[in-house]
Amino acid sequence: MSNNIKAAILGYGNLGRGVEFAIKQNPDIELVGFFTRRDPSSLVTNSPEVPVYSSDKLIEMKDSIDVLIICGGSATDLPVQSPKYAEHFNIVDSFDNHAHIPEHFTNCDAAALKGGKVAFISGGWDPGMFSLQRLLGNCILPDGCDYTFWGKGVSQGHSDAVRRIEGVLDARQYTIPVDTALEKVRSGENPQLTTREKHTRECFVVAAPDANLAKIENEIKTMPNYFADYDTTVHFISAEEMKRDHSSLPHGGFVMRSGVTGVNGETKQMIEYSLKLGSNPEFTSSVLVCCARAVYRMSKAGMTGAKTIFDVPPAYLSAKSGEELRKTLL
Amino acid sequence: MSNNIKAAILGYGNLGRGVEFAIKQNPDIELVGFFTRRDPSSLVTNSPEVPVYSSDKLIEMKDSIDVLIICGGSATDLPVQSPKYAEHFNIVDSFDNHAHIPEHFTNCDAAALKGGKVAFISGGWDPGMFSLQRLLGNCILPDGCDYTFWGKGVSQGHSDAVRRIEGVLDARQYTIPVDTALEKVRSGENPQLTTREKHTRECFVVAAPDANLAKIENEIKTMPNYFADYDTTVHFISAEEMKRDHSSLPHGGFVMRSGVTGVNGETKQMIEYSLKLGSNPEFTSSVLVCCARAVYRMSKAGMTGAKTIFDVPPAYLSAKSGEELRKTLL
Repeated sequence: MSNNIKAAILGYGNLGRGVEFAIKQNPDIELVGFFTRRDPSSLVTNSPEVPVYSSDKLIEMKDSIDVLIICGGSATDLPVQSPKYAEHFNIVDSFDNHAHIPEHFTNCDAAALKGGKVAFISGGWDPGMFSLQRLLGNCILPDGCDYTFWGKGVSQGHSDAVRRIEGVLDARQYTIPVDTALEKVRSGENPQLTTREKHTRECFVVAAPDANLAKIENEIKTMPNYFADYDTTVHFISAEEMKRDHSSLPHGGFVMRSGVTGVNGETKQMIEYSLKLGSNPEFTSSVLVCCARAVYRMSKAGMTGAKTIFDVPPAYLSAKSGEELRKTLL
Repeated sequence: MSNNIKAAILGYGNLGRGVEFAIKQNPDIELVGFFTRRDPSSLVTNSPEVPVYSSDKLIEMKDSIDVLIICGGSATDLPVQSPKYAEHFNIVDSFDNHAHIPEHFTNCDAAALKGGKVAFISGGWDPGMFSLQRLLGNCILPDGCDYTFWGKGVSQGHSDAVRRIEGVLDARQYTIPVDTALEKVRSGENPQLTTREKHTRECFVVAAPDANLAKIENEIKTMPNYFADYDTTVHFISAEEMKRDHSSLPHGGFVMRSGVTGVNGETKQMIEYSLKLGSNPEFTSSVLVCCARAVYRMSKAGMTGAKTIFDVPPAYLSAKSGEELRKTLL
């Protein structure tokens, strides 16, 4: 019997694959199974040595799984799956619908408390690492302003919105932070920035041969919530160009806290955290995996209920001992 | 009786003053006294409403202090003061002698466990926030490299070293990260960087009227450990210029984690955290004050012993409730 943490993956999309890869980078965590709502025999993973099961089998296998990493989507999967499984498993999810986090927390908390489990929600980078940086910035510099910029990166929600337009065969939308806005924030002048001043949006669209391009472009640029408040550029490209130039899912962004200290607030202080991610889902997955370790440890320490990155002693995220961490990283 | 956290400051130098200012920015924390080894009547603070006591009175006043923020130096004060007071108080210090942190931790841990108190050591930015970022980067991207750059900022240790040279009346030393090195790291190429490649050193020196400038410059540039391994420039300036241009204590730096993810480590991921501090001691103090809040909470939660930033659930640093934090910052 190994002492490894036994993790299972529910859902095998971009995120599930990312978790699969990330677990291989963490020798103290062992992947004991994939669980899918599809026919298990149809699922080809990158880990042929790891069994694939139907998600129907999940609850009956609960005693052989230390942490269940739920890799579903935030729109419809996680609001159901996380509370459902939190009663039976220590879970980790990446629920990223900011407005509904309090509700999701409450639901998972009730289930996890009922089952004596730990439910870690909203792991990833935003929510996740960005949230942690916002919290730290606020605590250290109470007199200050918060700024979060996203990008340059692919927004899947915005890409999907463009794909739903008539005549669009495929689309990729990049969110781009405005350099002059970043520089203004860095200067410490605490600017009030409008939506339009912070980000631009760039769309790459493969249109149907007979599509009305001007109409598509106009529909994109005037789409409420998604594009209307932004300066948006639209490029029509071929399917080949889409495949060649836009198949990865880069992302990233900046969290900044600009504050003042001193007897009369005369001293400027600036904290900046940034991510430049070659793959958004793979980075999110990497965060989920170290959160899975923390969940296991929190559970071993007797904690129960819903938790977020705000609740985790950072050392719990690491495989190293406190002594080793103090010696090498403090 | 207020419900505020009652904090006291031991030592009133740059750091003690910074803590005094930072407490004013945190309405849930109340400064109940300054303690000094000097004659209390000689100490003029920026808070005439707060009493100044002799440090001899400290232990007898222990029941009216929730957290003692120890603002001494790491060389000789903290190794004695922190273990001494950790038996009687929840304490916070900024012990920053990296090589001796394990020993300091052990000493404070024994004292705090004996007294049933919490001793938070090595708060600040490095050690402190930089350490936390190194830990997070290592946990998220186990296949990667760490980089820490310091500056541009005043190194007090190096300034002191220059001041000890014969013929030097005053000196200020700036540590400066090398831009091309930063860019190399940002590119994801994981360079091996020598000491000389990472930082340069710039000294501003006020020399005595009859001093041998060439000799001073040579002594600086060849000083082992401090300067010999760096490219150093030396500027001789007047006392007036020193006062006018170099009286603040700016600092900052960068912590970067450059790693890979994916099935074959083919995806580059980059995390960068940077600080641009108008005042090094004021920022350190601001960190100490939110750590003091966390110490108070950890003590209330029944924890005892020595702790570092690696052990603190981040929400403990904030005055806000978990619910409010999740709603506004997650």
